[in-house]
Amino acid sequence: MPKISHRGMQMPPSPIRKLVPYAEAAKKKGIRVYHLNIGQPDIETPPQILDAVRHSTFKVLEYSHSAGNESYRKKLTSYYARFDIHLDYSQIIITTGGSEAILFAMMSCLNPGDEIIIPEPFYANYNGFAMEAQVRIIPVTSTIENSFALPPVKDFEKLITERTKAILICNPNNPTGYLYSREELETLREICLRHDLYLFSDEAYREFCYEGSHFSALQLRGMKENVIVLDTISKRYSACGGRIGAFVTKNQTVLDSVMKFAQSRLSPPSFAQILGEAAVDLPADYFDHVKEEYRSRRNLLVKMLNDIPGVKCPRPGGAFYAMAQLPVDDADTFCQWILEEFAFKNQTVMLAPASGFYASSSLGKQEVRLAYVLNKNDIQHAMECLAEALKIYPGKKETTEVLARSNV
Amino acid sequence: MPKISHRGMQMPPSPIRKLVPYAEAAKKKGIRVYHLNIGQPDIETPPQILDAVRHSTFKVLEYSHSAGNESYRKKLTSYYARFDIHLDYSQIIITTGGSEAILFAMMSCLNPGDEIIIPEPFYANYNGFAMEAQVRIIPVTSTIENSFALPPVKDFEKLITERTKAILICNPNNPTGYLYSREELETLREICLRHDLYLFSDEAYREFCYEGSHFSALQLRGMKENVIVLDTISKRYSACGGRIGAFVTKNQTVLDSVMKFAQSRLSPPSFAQILGEAAVDLPADYFDHVKEEYRSRRNLLVKMLNDIPGVKCPRPGGAFYAMAQLPVDDADTFCQWILEEFAFKNQTVMLAPASGFYASSSLGKQEVRLAYVLNKNDIQHAMECLAEALKIYPGKKETTEVLARSNV
Repeated sequence: MPKISHRGMQMPPSPIRKLVPYAEAAKKKGIRVYHLNIGQPDIETPPQILDAVRHSTFKVLEYSHSAGNESYRKKLTSYYARFDIHLDYSQIIITTGGSEAILFAMMSCLNPGDEIIIPEPFYANYNGFAMEAQVRIIPVTSTIENSFALPPVKDFEKLITERTKAILICNPNNPTGYLYSREELETLREICLRHDLYLFSDEAYREFCYEGSHFSALQLRGMKENVIVLDTISKRYSACGGRIGAFVTKNQTVLDSVMKFAQSRLSPPSFAQILGEAAVDLPADYFDHVKEEYRSRRNLLVKMLNDIPGVKCPRPGGAFYAMAQLPVDDADTFCQWILEEFAFKNQTVMLAPASGFYASSSLGKQEVRLAYVLNKNDIQHAMECLAEALKIYPGKKETTEVLARSNV
Repeated sequence: MPKISHRGMQMPPSPIRKLVPYAEAAKKKGIRVYHLNIGQPDIETPPQILDAVRHSTFKVLEYSHSAGNESYRKKLTSYYARFDIHLDYSQIIITTGGSEAILFAMMSCLNPGDEIIIPEPFYANYNGFAMEAQVRIIPVTSTIENSFALPPVKDFEKLITERTKAILICNPNNPTGYLYSREELETLREICLRHDLYLFSDEAYREFCYEGSHFSALQLRGMKENVIVLDTISKRYSACGGRIGAFVTKNQTVLDSVMKFAQSRLSPPSFAQILGEAAVDLPADYFDHVKEEYRSRRNLLVKMLNDIPGVKCPRPGGAFYAMAQLPVDDADTFCQWILEEFAFKNQTVMLAPASGFYASSSLGKQEVRLAYVLNKNDIQHAMECLAEALKIYPGKKETTEVLARSNV
């Protein structure tokens, strides 16, 4: 029997999805499971953008241009202009989800063995794309004590080698919800210019900022050749299944290279490009309503978490995730136990253990990520379950700051 | 300015799309361009499968399961059963087009530097996926004199090294239209079992066989661990823009590995999965009509090509492509010239130069690929243009068999 590849063996399973079999088993026992593990919003996709697809009249479901429909790309320039980001449509390549934009960035800008610095904890699937591109992720640790702020410049600089090619941030952050300030972005600018690095900025959650406003990497001056923004409609319009994202840069050489990768996979999905194009025309107050809903969910979740003895949760400034430290021996074990062994009023909760969001193997053992993508009633029930579970969990343990501080 | 990657530089441009700027310039001059360069069928997508999407009523465009909707995967087992291929739905992973299935196969089964043997000429985008996976394509040459039949076993065996991990075929073939016989498949089975190789079989054009019937690699006995079928709905239902394909194997270890790659990109597009599922219910005679249309186009195209002095075109047994040898110095130059410098009755034709479909750099210089995806009237006009163009092309040259025979 032929062997599978090393990367096939080494690919880490998704920390967000790896406990799915335990959740399915719980459901089979008749237990209701609140899914706070995955960023699948329950918010309805705006009906008018679904209708743009449903009322379409084309007769052949053709390939689009490899860079996406020109009409969509042109329309997107007006979306970005609202954020004071001024682009020509040729600087936007439509991708199959934000996922493909991340993969294209790594493939086009880094050689196998090259290094990319990413503040950890980070979106776990970056590991998968780095494995595909044979790129080494070098983590720089942000800590829960510091609410996951950007690590100091010296922490970045001591990691830079001749193989370092890029820094990747997610702003606002998944999984921490941290919203980087303009000053932090300026710090990254300085580092990138000094060391001739790319700055990849994953701005999937741009619209969901609850304290202050978003400052995009594309707004940094003098960074035309360095900045690549990785974008997606998934969370923005509750349209995760569309699989439409965007690769945005002003660096023409990078665009030319990415176009070749884009051509090799022919085109991004046609249906959801229609939806994405219609989304740019949503009324201006669309995000106000959605943001208000997420803000109130966040407030409830964070309050209820911090009310549980031994639980710490910094207040996230954006996105719809929170990281919490739990008084447990091992969050992986706990997250499995709460699905397998526990129920309160015939309900339980699914969380994402944080270890999979850290590249440093010793970190995040007491942390979990929670996605506040459920309505407040469900969040309330889920938090009650968590509080009850922590009362009786056999592997209870004081939270300690030692682990989070270590950078091994 | 940071550098782009070696792969970003080395990625070959698409031979199918690289002449697009010349076609656009011709159109701006008011010339009608017949597109025989690209496999974008003009046949209508069956309205009932478009309606399945248009009449959908879901409210949230959610991620699907990373392996695709269970209902779709289960339904697909009945599609394959029609070809005497018996699968459990867990052996089918829905992908983003056939493209992603090819990438997953290379990523999961081959290490960087490993070798995959592919009969050339081959689908040019295999180059792109091999570049992404850092896999070496080793071509084994099939010749126009032999109508692009499977090269003899000895040609394969002399290429096999300790780095060889797989053989990849496309059946029926893009770009040659060659339909592999059961005997040829049995030959590949023998080679793969003897040398412990994977057999990747791209069966995108399974339904379009005009002489005899299709024998799938999944029908080979004793090859459970070796065979991976790469599939797509794109051409089958004239649904290229859906970006829905499938990765099919009975090898559980490979499935487990591919699932990790699938999870890292979250899910395939949701809209077109609905379309794909509806397509399995199309009436049994759907393909009869479509196949009959392609068959008559093929007959017309091949006859008109062979009627042009100096042109040779073997009769393809399947798919909707034909390879023709032209009496020209260099097909790349000719294909550009016919767009840039030529028009007949204010019309011209766009062809794909074959050099991009060969890995051996000296081959295919006099060959072009033609996709018979236009109606017969258009094919007729396109062939008239080609005949007139060859009368006056300044770089005219006898066709020679020397180039095609060389395997350098």
